[in-house]
Amino acid sequence: MDQPQIKISTAANVALIKYWGKTSSEMNMPAVPSLSIGMEDLRTETIIRFSNTDDILHGSFNPKQKDRILGYLGETKKRYHVTRKLSIDTRNNFPSSTGLASSASGFAALAIGLNSFLDLGLSDEDISRLARRGSGSSARSVFGGYVEMLAGKDSFARPLMSAKSWPLDIIVMITDEKEKKVSSSEAMEISRRSSPFYSAWVDSHAEDFDGARQAILKKDFWELAKFSERNCLKMHATIMTSGPAIMYWNSATLAIIRHVNKIRESGTNVFFTIDAGPQVKLICDPGDTEKIVKEFEPINGIARKIITRVGGTPKIETRK
Amino acid sequence: MDQPQIKISTAANVALIKYWGKTSSEMNMPAVPSLSIGMEDLRTETIIRFSNTDDILHGSFNPKQKDRILGYLGETKKRYHVTRKLSIDTRNNFPSSTGLASSASGFAALAIGLNSFLDLGLSDEDISRLARRGSGSSARSVFGGYVEMLAGKDSFARPLMSAKSWPLDIIVMITDEKEKKVSSSEAMEISRRSSPFYSAWVDSHAEDFDGARQAILKKDFWELAKFSERNCLKMHATIMTSGPAIMYWNSATLAIIRHVNKIRESGTNVFFTIDAGPQVKLICDPGDTEKIVKEFEPINGIARKIITRVGGTPKIETRK
Repeated sequence: MDQPQIKISTAANVALIKYWGKTSSEMNMPAVPSLSIGMEDLRTETIIRFSNTDDILHGSFNPKQKDRILGYLGETKKRYHVTRKLSIDTRNNFPSSTGLASSASGFAALAIGLNSFLDLGLSDEDISRLARRGSGSSARSVFGGYVEMLAGKDSFARPLMSAKSWPLDIIVMITDEKEKKVSSSEAMEISRRSSPFYSAWVDSHAEDFDGARQAILKKDFWELAKFSERNCLKMHATIMTSGPAIMYWNSATLAIIRHVNKIRESGTNVFFTIDAGPQVKLICDPGDTEKIVKEFEPINGIARKIITRVGGTPKIETRK
Repeated sequence: MDQPQIKISTAANVALIKYWGKTSSEMNMPAVPSLSIGMEDLRTETIIRFSNTDDILHGSFNPKQKDRILGYLGETKKRYHVTRKLSIDTRNNFPSSTGLASSASGFAALAIGLNSFLDLGLSDEDISRLARRGSGSSARSVFGGYVEMLAGKDSFARPLMSAKSWPLDIIVMITDEKEKKVSSSEAMEISRRSSPFYSAWVDSHAEDFDGARQAILKKDFWELAKFSERNCLKMHATIMTSGPAIMYWNSATLAIIRHVNKIRESGTNVFFTIDAGPQVKLICDPGDTEKIVKEFEPINGIARKIITRVGGTPKIETRK
């Protein structure tokens, strides 16, 4: 007889309104609400099986993450009184630890998979909370489309609007495939402790969040662009004023930002956002994607482009 | 008989602790204290003569500045009850309106020149105040070496330490010779009105100023580097979080910042600062200048380098 197993596919997401800063590190309690879109084709595929030996882990994750993932597995099992040993096989179809939210899709896959495989019977809200304990942004990857995440105690994410209500494309411009030197978690903590702008970041966040949220519900592209870019620049400004300064951007990151401003002047609907890394995501109307990709051909330093769309609903692919 | 005339040479300066934000636009009252070094070889040369016609202006300044300079001249004459007509000829030996402080050296030349030519009998403090009315940072170009400028009502600059007490070199890396789109004065006002980080910028400034000031007096290169870079990044973070966002950096600006961090890891004494433009100034020990210039040869996008040193004492070159 085949061993029981489950195979889950979850998508990375990109925050249009950023999660940056925690009120509790241990619990991954976000200091600010956030708002993201699932990236349909940037996916983690995770297979969970029972195992005869201690919990084992295979896959394409960053080796430094091994203890973090196994620790999470251990804690989750303990919390739900699971005594059986597990084997986890997890793979990303995009570069890990480069600021493309591989931990978001990774921990969402684990939370969804463990709930289903072990019949934990959790609500969506509780699955999102469970994912959050692995990585704050993974609370959002439990859902597809437009997703919002609340701040504060034991926070969780919830769907705001479906992907098909407002189809937009995402052009992921990878400017550096190397692993970033400072992880998001470390950088958040350094910012919180040392940036003189951190309080102003937190205090001025609600306006961006509310503005972007309304813009999504109204499908107002330029309003969303305005709040999203502003929030992105505020996050990076907070990061670069930390002590020591952390600079996630490289020269291609900046060349892309400047080029977005330039082609926008000629009337193309496009805006940028950048998570904690040097990669830039462009958001645009699907009808303009091809034209925009062409317009970026002369820009140096773009190692790779991934073209995808808002989506990313998790899938339980096989269960036996 | 020759017409009486005076020829003044003044140097641009670069702020290590930035002046950004005004409490009064009309009077150029700085919201924060600043600290600068004179750049010995980036100079404005200005000749003042009496004239038979209305005040006239020749030179290499940016044409948009003409009204500003003539307005300044008119106000100064009115304030000191000067009725004779003047001819002003002013030339910079470096690119104007690109973030290299041409208005600093320009208005300092006018203030020093007018005081001397018209026998106004002003103290150094009052000459500095007079220069400030033309451009805030020009209050500092009235002196050479290490100069500090106080904040607040009717503020002025004063020498902190002579250039020869601590000889340092300045490598000016020009990454864009085009005139900047948003002037410093406009950008300051936009920041003050709209950046959610502006208050934190002002509130956290004294620590940088005091730290850099002490570092200069102790000739502690790394302390000065730390406070100076932090303050520079804070200023640009405030600028880029304005609404609309203002981005003075280009991709070469960022490539230079990253390269400074890289070569510093191998032990070279060098730090960067960037005024309101895309140009980067590197500060280093004179013994390392040649080596550093070589290390930057592979970096793309540096249109021109000017190598100079801390100095910039104004000179009255001829008077007849």
